[in-house]
Amino acid sequence: MTASAKPLPAPHLGEPYLLTPGPLTTAFSTKEAMLKDWGSWDADFRAMTRSLCDQLVALAGDSRGEFVCVPMQGSGSFSVEAMLGTFVPREGKALVLANGAYGLRAAETMRYLGRAYTLIDKGDYMPPRGDEVAAELDADPAITHVVAIHCETSSGILNPVAEISEAVYSRGRKLLIDSMSAFGAIDLDVNRIRYEAMVSSANKCIEGVPGFGFVVARRSELEAAKGNSHSLALDLHAQWAYMEKTGQWRYTPPTHVVAAFLEALRLHAEEGGVPARGARYTRNRDVMVDGMRGLGFETLLKDRWLSPIIVTFFCPADPNFVFSRFYELMKAKGFIIYPGKLTVVDSFRVGCIGRMDEHVMRKVVQAAKEALAEMGVASAAPPEAAIAERARLAA
Amino acid sequence: MTASAKPLPAPHLGEPYLLTPGPLTTAFSTKEAMLKDWGSWDADFRAMTRSLCDQLVALAGDSRGEFVCVPMQGSGSFSVEAMLGTFVPREGKALVLANGAYGLRAAETMRYLGRAYTLIDKGDYMPPRGDEVAAELDADPAITHVVAIHCETSSGILNPVAEISEAVYSRGRKLLIDSMSAFGAIDLDVNRIRYEAMVSSANKCIEGVPGFGFVVARRSELEAAKGNSHSLALDLHAQWAYMEKTGQWRYTPPTHVVAAFLEALRLHAEEGGVPARGARYTRNRDVMVDGMRGLGFETLLKDRWLSPIIVTFFCPADPNFVFSRFYELMKAKGFIIYPGKLTVVDSFRVGCIGRMDEHVMRKVVQAAKEALAEMGVASAAPPEAAIAERARLAA
Ligand SMILES: Cc1ncc(COP(=O)(O)O)c(C=O)c1O
Ligand SMILES: Cc1ncc(COP(=O)(O)O)c(C=O)c1O
Repeated sequence: MTASAKPLPAPHLGEPYLLTPGPLTTAFSTKEAMLKDWGSWDADFRAMTRSLCDQLVALAGDSRGEFVCVPMQGSGSFSVEAMLGTFVPREGKALVLANGAYGLRAAETMRYLGRAYTLIDKGDYMPPRGDEVAAELDADPAITHVVAIHCETSSGILNPVAEISEAVYSRGRKLLIDSMSAFGAIDLDVNRIRYEAMVSSANKCIEGVPGFGFVVARRSELEAAKGNSHSLALDLHAQWAYMEKTGQWRYTPPTHVVAAFLEALRLHAEEGGVPARGARYTRNRDVMVDGMRGLGFETLLKDRWLSPIIVTFFCPADPNFVFSRFYELMKAKGFIIYPGKLTVVDSFRVGCIGRMDEHVMRKVVQAAKEALAEMGVASAAPPEAAIAERARLAA
Repeated sequence: MTASAKPLPAPHLGEPYLLTPGPLTTAFSTKEAMLKDWGSWDADFRAMTRSLCDQLVALAGDSRGEFVCVPMQGSGSFSVEAMLGTFVPREGKALVLANGAYGLRAAETMRYLGRAYTLIDKGDYMPPRGDEVAAELDADPAITHVVAIHCETSSGILNPVAEISEAVYSRGRKLLIDSMSAFGAIDLDVNRIRYEAMVSSANKCIEGVPGFGFVVARRSELEAAKGNSHSLALDLHAQWAYMEKTGQWRYTPPTHVVAAFLEALRLHAEEGGVPARGARYTRNRDVMVDGMRGLGFETLLKDRWLSPIIVTFFCPADPNFVFSRFYELMKAKGFIIYPGKLTVVDSFRVGCIGRMDEHVMRKVVQAAKEALAEMGVASAAPPEAAIAERARLAA
C-alpha cells in the first residue's frame, strides 16, 4: 500500500475507531453479515463452516493436506487452553516462553491443567531467543513441547518464532504457537516455519467480530491427541472428530459471528491476503509511531522488535498527564486507545490493526497532539526512570 | 396472549423460520444491535455488561442481593462445564439426573473432570422424580450435589425441578440446574425453587444470538468455590472476581452478541417478562401440536411432560416418509425443523421458541400437510414398534 491509496470508509454511525488489539473496528459489510439467523444443523451453515476451515488452512500455507483447522467457541484464551490441554500429553512437559501477559497466561493455564511446565520469563521488554531455548531444551530432556507467543500483545513485541522453531526442532521437540494477534497479517506459513499447532481468533488480523477462536494443527498430531484433554468443552480432538463426521460444530456455534468472519475473510483475500494486510498494518504503525515520536512520546521497544500490531508508549512524565483524561479526550475525538499492560512503568497502547489505514493514523496523531495541549502537557517525554528501567532490563 | 394478538413481523430477507432449540429466529432489531463495534475495555461496554447481569439476576427473582450473574464466553455447554467444575469441589460427588442427551452430557463432563459422580438415567421418555432422588441421596451420603436438567431439550420433556429441589434440600444437599432451554420462559424463581446455581445461554428463551452462556449463582457458594476449577478459561470464580473488580469480562467478550442480547432482554421485558414469554411459547406449542396430531403425527411424550420449548414427534411408519426429504420440503416452504436426538426410534423435533407466534405455527402445520402430500405419505401415524417401545419404557 502506498501513501496515495484510497482511504478506507469511516466507521458507520459516527462511532469511534477502536485502536485496540481486538475487538477492533470491522468493515460495515462484516457486521451486516450478521443480519440473518442461521440454523446450525442446516446444510447452508455446514457449508459455511467448511469454507471457513478450508480458508484458514490455506492461509497457513498448507497445500498438502497435512493440516486441519478446528474452530472453537469462546474467546481466544479458550482456544489457547484447548490447544495446550489437547496437545501437551498428561505426561508431557511444556517449556513456556514468556515476555508479557499472554506468555504468563499460557503458563497459568498449564498450572490449572496440572501438567508439568517450565518457564523462561524475559520480562516486558525482550524476546526469547533461539539460543536460550536450545540451551533450556538441552538442559531438560523431559520437555516435550515449547509454547511461544508470536506477537506478545501486552507490549507489542514481535517474537522471533522462526529462530525459536529451528531451536525446537533441532532438539527434536514440538512447537505450539499462540499467534492470536499476528495470524493473517504476519507470515506463519507452515512451509517456512515448522510447528504442530497454532491458535488465533476471529477478532484480530482477519478483522472479524469476537466469538470464537481456531487452531490450525497438524492432522497426525491431532489424531494422536485423543484422550488428552482435561475438559469436555475444550477438547479439540473431540471437536475435530465430530466435525469430520458431521460437518457441524459439536456444540452450538456462534452462527452470526461465523457469518461475519466469512465476510471478513473475503475482504482479507480481496485486499491481497497476508502480505497486503501486513503491509497496511506496517504502514499504519510507521505513520503513527513517527507522528507520536514527533510529539515527544517514546516507545517501549526498540524498532527492531516493534510489531505492526500494537505499540506501547510510555506515559509522559509531565504531571499534567493523566491517562484517564487522555483516554476520554481521545475518545471524544473519535479514537479509543488502550491502557498499558506493563508491570513496572505507566504506559498506554495504540493498536494498528482493524479496518483503518494511514489516513486514520494521521488523525490519531493529530488528536493526541490536541489532547496534550488541552491537558496542558508541554512535553510527552517519559520519566527518566522509565528509560533507565528499559535500559537496565534490556542490557 | 390471545388468538387475536397482532402477528409478529416475519423474518427479514425472506429467510426461513428456525423451528429449532436455538440458534433460533430472533427479532430484526436484535440483529441490528450488532451493527456497531464496541471496545471491550471502554466504560460504555462495561455499563452494558453491568446491565446484562443485573437484568438476569432480576429474572431469576433475586431481590435480596444473594445471587450474582456470571456470563461466560462460548456455547451453553461451556457454561455447564464451568458450573460443574466450579461448584462441585474436587472431593465432592455429584448425582446427575439424566433423561436424554443433555443429562448424559453433564455426566460426561464430570467424567472429564475426574470427579466422582453417579447417574440416574431414565432413558428418553420419563422424568426423574423427587422420591427417586431422595432414595438415592439417602443411600449415598457421599453425594454433595445434584445436577438436574430443567427442560431436557433432546426430547422436550419438562422435568419437575421443584419436587427435585425439595428432595435435595430436605436431604441437606445442593442443587445445580441446567436451565439452558427453559430460563426466561419457564419459572425458575429463587424464591420458589431453591438452588445454588443455574445455567442458561444467550440464544434460547431470551431470544438473543449465540456466543455466550451465563450462570446465576448464590454469591456465598461462588465465594467458597475459589480454586475448584479444573480450567482457567472456565473458572467461574475467577471470571466473577475479575468482573467484580474491573467491571470487565476476564477475556475478550463477544461484544456484538452482548449488544444483541441487551436488545433481546428489552424485548423480553416489553413482552411482559417470563410469564408472557412462557404464554406465547405455550400457545405456539398447543396450536402446533394440535395441528400435527390432526395430521396423524404422534408426540413422544404424554401431554403432562410436554414442554412449551420443543416437541418430539415420531417419524411416520409410511415407507414414503423420508426425513431428509421432509426436511428439505419444509425448508423450501420457509421452515427449518430439527432432527430427533433419540437413541431408539426415528423422530424429529419442532421448536416452539424464538420470535414467532401461533400464526406462524399454523403455517408450519399447513406446510407439514403439504409436504406429506408431496411425498405421497397417506398417514403420519408412527410405527407400532415406536408406540410399543414408548409404552414399555414408560410402564
Ligand atoms: C497473544 C494473545 N494471546 C491470547 C489472547 C487472549 O485472547 P482473548 O482475549 O480473546 O481470550 C490475546 C488477546 O489479545 C493475545 O493477544
Ligand atoms: C438443556 C441443554 N443443555 C445444554 C445445551 C448445550 O448448549 P450448547 O449447544 O449451546 O452448548 C443445550 C442446547 O440445546 C440444552 O438444551
